[in-house]
Amino acid sequence: MKQDCYHEAKKRFTCNTQRALHIIGEKWMLHILREFLYTDQKKSFNQLMKELKPISSRTLSLKLKKLQERGIIKRKVIDARPVKVEYEITEQGKGLKKAILAFGDWFVKHHG
Amino acid sequence: MKQDCYHEAKKRFTCNTQRALHIIGEKWMLHILREFLYTDQKKSFNQLMKELKPISSRTLSLKLKKLQERGIIKRKVIDARPVKVEYEITEQGKGLKKAILAFGDWFVKHHG
Repeated sequence: MKQDCYHEAKKRFTCNTQRALHIIGEKWMLHILREFLYTDQKKSFNQLMKELKPISSRTLSLKLKKLQERGIIKRKVIDARPVKVEYEITEQGKGLKKAILAFGDWFVKHHG
Repeated sequence: MKQDCYHEAKKRFTCNTQRALHIIGEKWMLHILREFLYTDQKKSFNQLMKELKPISSRTLSLKLKKLQERGIIKRKVIDARPVKVEYEITEQGKGLKKAILAFGDWFVKHHG
């Protein structure tokens, strides 16, 4: 698993929050994670495309690749006909649930 | 205070986390907020530019404007010579501290 991003984060920042944001603070990243954290199910690319509308397929593909390289989601190729590809969240990715849910709590408190 | 973004978030999503991400999930937003949450001080544009390197001045200006419109930071013009402009976080913005710190905890747990 390539996790260069973590090394770079550690080298570049002294604050752990900055380090974390370096890894998952890009546009769409948290939106994608939310989809996995709320249902805890495997998802196909097309399913994610639908759920994350209006994301482009190029962006989704790029972000999924990054999340995978960073050990936050897993990609699984299933030997069927036709071949199926599924994405699921890793244990490390599940660790982000608390932070992501806290955003929801914030919204309710201020605008619910 | 223009907060159209909140109405749009409410109309578009049923999940409060999605709503929150619609408001603060863009690139740089959380990075900018982190700067305010860790020090709880007023900041000038140039200070933020330095702290958020390599952000461009165009991007910083755009994101600060959005955060201001969304009630998360305040812009203050101080009648001095030369005129000074300061930014500070609002009470609503401070409400995001828990979520943002949770990202730091996540980093420590998995890669600290």
